[in-house]
Amino acid sequence: MVKKINVGLVGYKFMGKAHSNAYIKAPVFFKSAAVPVMKAICGRDEKGVREAAETYGWQSYETSWQKLVSRKDIDLIDISTPTNFHRDIAVAAAQEGKHILCEKPMALNLNETKEMLKTAENSGVKHMMGFNYRRLPAIVLARNLIKEGRLGKIYHFRAVYFQDWIIDPDFPLVWRLKKEIAGLGALGDMGAHIIDLARFLVGEFDSVMCTTETFIKERPEPAAVTGLTAKKGEGRGEVTVDDAAIFMARFRNGALGAFETTRFAAGHKNYECIEVNGEKGSISFNLERLNELQVFSREDEECTQGFKTILVTESSHPYIKAWWPPGHIIGWEHAMVHQVHDLIDSIARDTMPTPNFVDGAKCQEVLEALSKSAQQNRWINIP
Amino acid sequence: MVKKINVGLVGYKFMGKAHSNAYIKAPVFFKSAAVPVMKAICGRDEKGVREAAETYGWQSYETSWQKLVSRKDIDLIDISTPTNFHRDIAVAAAQEGKHILCEKPMALNLNETKEMLKTAENSGVKHMMGFNYRRLPAIVLARNLIKEGRLGKIYHFRAVYFQDWIIDPDFPLVWRLKKEIAGLGALGDMGAHIIDLARFLVGEFDSVMCTTETFIKERPEPAAVTGLTAKKGEGRGEVTVDDAAIFMARFRNGALGAFETTRFAAGHKNYECIEVNGEKGSISFNLERLNELQVFSREDEECTQGFKTILVTESSHPYIKAWWPPGHIIGWEHAMVHQVHDLIDSIARDTMPTPNFVDGAKCQEVLEALSKSAQQNRWINIP
Amino acid sequence: MVKKINVGLVGYKFMGKAHSNAYIKAPVFFKSAAVPVMKAICGRDEKGVREAAETYGWQSYETSWQKLVSRKDIDLIDISTPTNFHRDIAVAAAQEGKHILCEKPMALNLNETKEMLKTAENSGVKHMMGFNYRRLPAIVLARNLIKEGRLGKIYHFRAVYFQDWIIDPDFPLVWRLKKEIAGLGALGDMGAHIIDLARFLVGEFDSVMCTTETFIKERPEPAAVTGLTAKKGEGRGEVTVDDAAIFMARFRNGALGAFETTRFAAGHKNYECIEVNGEKGSISFNLERLNELQVFSREDEECTQGFKTILVTESSHPYIKAWWPPGHIIGWEHAMVHQVHDLIDSIARDTMPTPNFVDGAKCQEVLEALSKSAQQNRWINIP
Amino acid sequence: MVKKINVGLVGYKFMGKAHSNAYIKAPVFFKSAAVPVMKAICGRDEKGVREAAETYGWQSYETSWQKLVSRKDIDLIDISTPTNFHRDIAVAAAQEGKHILCEKPMALNLNETKEMLKTAENSGVKHMMGFNYRRLPAIVLARNLIKEGRLGKIYHFRAVYFQDWIIDPDFPLVWRLKKEIAGLGALGDMGAHIIDLARFLVGEFDSVMCTTETFIKERPEPAAVTGLTAKKGEGRGEVTVDDAAIFMARFRNGALGAFETTRFAAGHKNYECIEVNGEKGSISFNLERLNELQVFSREDEECTQGFKTILVTESSHPYIKAWWPPGHIIGWEHAMVHQVHDLIDSIARDTMPTPNFVDGAKCQEVLEALSKSAQQNRWINIP
Repeated sequence: MVKKINVGLVGYKFMGKAHSNAYIKAPVFFKSAAVPVMKAICGRDEKGVREAAETYGWQSYETSWQKLVSRKDIDLIDISTPTNFHRDIAVAAAQEGKHILCEKPMALNLNETKEMLKTAENSGVKHMMGFNYRRLPAIVLARNLIKEGRLGKIYHFRAVYFQDWIIDPDFPLVWRLKKEIAGLGALGDMGAHIIDLARFLVGEFDSVMCTTETFIKERPEPAAVTGLTAKKGEGRGEVTVDDAAIFMARFRNGALGAFETTRFAAGHKNYECIEVNGEKGSISFNLERLNELQVFSREDEECTQGFKTILVTESSHPYIKAWWPPGHIIGWEHAMVHQVHDLIDSIARDTMPTPNFVDGAKCQEVLEALSKSAQQNRWINIP
Repeated sequence: MVKKINVGLVGYKFMGKAHSNAYIKAPVFFKSAAVPVMKAICGRDEKGVREAAETYGWQSYETSWQKLVSRKDIDLIDISTPTNFHRDIAVAAAQEGKHILCEKPMALNLNETKEMLKTAENSGVKHMMGFNYRRLPAIVLARNLIKEGRLGKIYHFRAVYFQDWIIDPDFPLVWRLKKEIAGLGALGDMGAHIIDLARFLVGEFDSVMCTTETFIKERPEPAAVTGLTAKKGEGRGEVTVDDAAIFMARFRNGALGAFETTRFAAGHKNYECIEVNGEKGSISFNLERLNELQVFSREDEECTQGFKTILVTESSHPYIKAWWPPGHIIGWEHAMVHQVHDLIDSIARDTMPTPNFVDGAKCQEVLEALSKSAQQNRWINIP
Repeated sequence: MVKKINVGLVGYKFMGKAHSNAYIKAPVFFKSAAVPVMKAICGRDEKGVREAAETYGWQSYETSWQKLVSRKDIDLIDISTPTNFHRDIAVAAAQEGKHILCEKPMALNLNETKEMLKTAENSGVKHMMGFNYRRLPAIVLARNLIKEGRLGKIYHFRAVYFQDWIIDPDFPLVWRLKKEIAGLGALGDMGAHIIDLARFLVGEFDSVMCTTETFIKERPEPAAVTGLTAKKGEGRGEVTVDDAAIFMARFRNGALGAFETTRFAAGHKNYECIEVNGEKGSISFNLERLNELQVFSREDEECTQGFKTILVTESSHPYIKAWWPPGHIIGWEHAMVHQVHDLIDSIARDTMPTPNFVDGAKCQEVLEALSKSAQQNRWINIP
Repeated sequence: MVKKINVGLVGYKFMGKAHSNAYIKAPVFFKSAAVPVMKAICGRDEKGVREAAETYGWQSYETSWQKLVSRKDIDLIDISTPTNFHRDIAVAAAQEGKHILCEKPMALNLNETKEMLKTAENSGVKHMMGFNYRRLPAIVLARNLIKEGRLGKIYHFRAVYFQDWIIDPDFPLVWRLKKEIAGLGALGDMGAHIIDLARFLVGEFDSVMCTTETFIKERPEPAAVTGLTAKKGEGRGEVTVDDAAIFMARFRNGALGAFETTRFAAGHKNYECIEVNGEKGSISFNLERLNELQVFSREDEECTQGFKTILVTESSHPYIKAWWPPGHIIGWEHAMVHQVHDLIDSIARDTMPTPNFVDGAKCQEVLEALSKSAQQNRWINIP
């Protein structure tokens, strides 16, 4: 008989929807070692969470995460809330012996992530971080090529993550723009992704130097928030996170890193681009064309060297066999499905998934060093 | 209480999987006027269809389409079989008063499509053709722009559809390469899509001229077929459909059409590209980058005229509000979900969906004229 | 002492300028076996041709091509006039024992080209056709790869050539729109290029099928023509050439050809794109990005197959050593310089350059078959 | 009668060739207010410089720049030597009352540039810096659009300049890798270009933060150097300049700057990419596709917003009227021709050209601040 993993999800908006979709699809497309059961979804607004439960097919709902976490029929807590709730939920879940999937960034600060990691390790539960881009076929292929030595020694890693959804100065002061809820702005939200990809592809950071900017310092208070959009309400409030961040890094292996993240790059909607240059070749990737990977090899004969555009939709590519025939592209949401498949598999097989809280904490360590660097205007070493 | 439409699906391989996914996802992401209920899936191989039923969550399965069609608890028959079954199933379904969704191409020949259309009209059921690309956000946007007159008078339509999955001469003789099952080769399978898009975007065909070629005339018999892939079996057999087709057309509105479709274009996996040139501008689209639409306007000021790459992932774009925030791309499968949403809506609201059997028959008329043209080496008028 | 080839150029507008530039630059960048001497330029309008002579550095000018052709101090006649003068000048030049460089298309019809070829052969002069795109580094590289068997057996050749400079119905009736001067419209002007490239890359045509269209049948008479632009004058006249042509072809080696050329493709300025698909790979090229060649190889390992974008600006690429360091792109005019270098070299070394009048006549044979096909609506065999 | 400007060029290798070509072509394509006369070319190796004089058509040659500078028949000294000669030649030329065109970077350090500027100003000569990319049509268009306010307030400028010509650790220790001759490595050679473009497009720097790296610290001594290529000689020596640099900046107008330059980016030959993000739109540019400019406008209607690819080859674009018809692309060298045209025009009309030594010195100020920042690991203010 098929093993079952009972899931309780906290959060029902953008991330809650994306994770719900992943739990629905994973068992349809993947033969995992267990099947996720959509036991309960949790949110503070009863009307909202009830509707979400109905829409996404959760068997029940809760309006208190404490109650959800203490339910005996839940094996896995999925934390898809704003960042300021991550620590409390994760610690409680671990103490209740629940496995945990946690959205990024892991928490508001390094101390919180350390506490989360320690509690999870003490409890012996499985923990995973929602760095979903590690599970895009193109990124897995990139990682495989690098691990196989196709690029040789790495000289450069660079990554940008650009959006433009708050470029209008009248866009309201949503929670992602408040330090006490989001921790950081573009640096935390999008920076966490590219820091994690840097670690995944190149290795550990050695030291960082950062500068940040808040271009629009005051915004209208929000009303009628829906996902990432919101209408203006009464009054104005202070933006307490960064709008943009530039940072440079040195990696332990000697590579240089160049990073930039902003919510003020007109025309870029979800433009996460990374590039790795090594002694034997280069790799580049753009999230807005996530079915493609660019690869250059200096080992090709001289007159036909060039960047290849690999359409990562063939059965030889990671995860693709589960989906469609050649050339049928997948979307952003599919990496979330891969994540659920791998997580469920890991729990069922009693192995620790990656990336996990160790990775989340290391990412937070870098984020914290970046914040400190931006405040103190100097290079900060990563311990 | 929410209205329900009970669905019976015939076919459980590539198309069966894609349609199952659409029935699963449509009610999660769209508020349609009714909800599809996955009543039964049907296939000849009991083991296969039973597994499919379990995997995709169909409540029951059948191994006889006749039995499925006669079940009283089914409202809608979805025909996702090889082409040679379309006519019989559709006619029977219509006679039983079932609504019908039929995969393309509609049937083996024009007579069959006429019979299907007539029976469906006589029965008063809703009928829809699975020309799924009409429901890609980029294509809907293209159609809207053309309808609004943004391109002015249309001078040129061109479309290619390239794949390379049978380029290896030892690739086996699967059903898509046999006339008695598939009707046509690249011309029917991929040609049907671009003919339909031409009609959707530009209008009716006036006359056509075609040439076809079968590069590899004999292939190994297949064994162990899985989706579009297959292993070689014993013996060899004759390929009885085209590998490639080139055709030119004149449209009723005076535009010229240029078309090409082949399964021998090395490196192109699912490369369906269309372009429309009008007196005021141009539009182009590539299925391998289906989240993008290229638009050129002669009405822009002279020194900044250029093809725009529109990332069709914003809430102002067709169907996108149901999905993710800006810049989060969708995949090939999503158009199938849109199709189910629109079909269910139409049935619930008692309106005829489009494209329907009228469109399927008109597409078949063009396909038949193309075949005739290729045989007789002359232009053929479309009645 | 360096050998010298004395050049007389007929034509001083677009082509005259491009050829003059080539004679200026070739000896600066290439060590040819001789040096071209810019002896005389010829044109009907004395003021215009005198200015051209001064601007481009021609030692003298003539207003009669007959006089130019009979000058004893001229070794090479360069025919850069409208098409209707090609035959007379070429025949006279050959009879005077002058070598000839002739712009494309070769002449108004096949009979003229045959006469030109025969006279040139009888006179024993060197003759060359100005199919300049054969001398783009990317095209030479493409040809080399095909000749080396990198694509294997060729299945498909396709080419389009799109412009939009006459899309405005009020654009005047310049000479390129009149049959008696230009011979053909888009078919001759741009079609000649892609027919020649097809022959260069794939081989001889076997049969062709064509349709043409003149979208705007009447236009204002021109006044104040400057290069490709012109102002409206008084009255209106009939357009007697095609605005657009679509044609299909079969090659002797079994490949299929698909072609389209138009001056009504809004947004395309000089968009000549070709693609070749073979059993082992594909190649594609776009004149608007002429420093790049796209190459796909099925012999790459499966998971990293993809179209390579080769920046054809390295010293390992054809002609590039003469120019700049890696990555410094060249322009459209550079192929003209390569052409002069190769022509001067051939004359000095007493070898026949290619493409020559044999190629020009074969191209004309195809053009004539296409015209006939468009008139008679049937396939025409190439003898 | 046409005014003449007599030119003396110092340097005959890569830059000498590029400048010679510009003096040859400028009077052919542009009607400047004077005509440059190629009086003399100068270099230390007599055989080399004599050949260059013959090849490029210089009337005479010199082996001593001191002698060239003192010649009475020279009006303009063009300094195309390695960086360590710039100061001495420029100062002497100014003292002799010669106008000056100087290649970038302006000199080895800020003191030198100040001396050069002061001497030139005291002498009242015209001076110009060879920041040639300011004269690419796409860059001029970008500047025009920004000046017209099309982007509104600028938030971000970013630029990278990547090459890979020294990625092989056995590539020899050519002069560009030695501090005493080149001053800086990638930072000076390529960094100077993107710093100048930043100033041209966005405005003055306020402060900078930089880090540099030399990946390969020792290389073979060179033998048989030809342009940018060289063969290995005996022994090894120390690389005394940077291989790569990353820097961040703040501009006076509040914009953030992100920069990276390296000679270790495998697959990038001459990849200079810049992007500007403003409140109303964005612009981006890539030197390897220098005939294109990408422009995004938030003022387009919502559903058709997208980055436009403008092919900057129309008569409405800067400098293009002098060249070819629509869509006929130009090459890297053409900006050098524009530079000569503008310089000659300025001299003839007695106006100061831009960019001039003021710009060269300001660029050097930024370079010097970057060096200091890299040494001291802290932000440095630009005075």
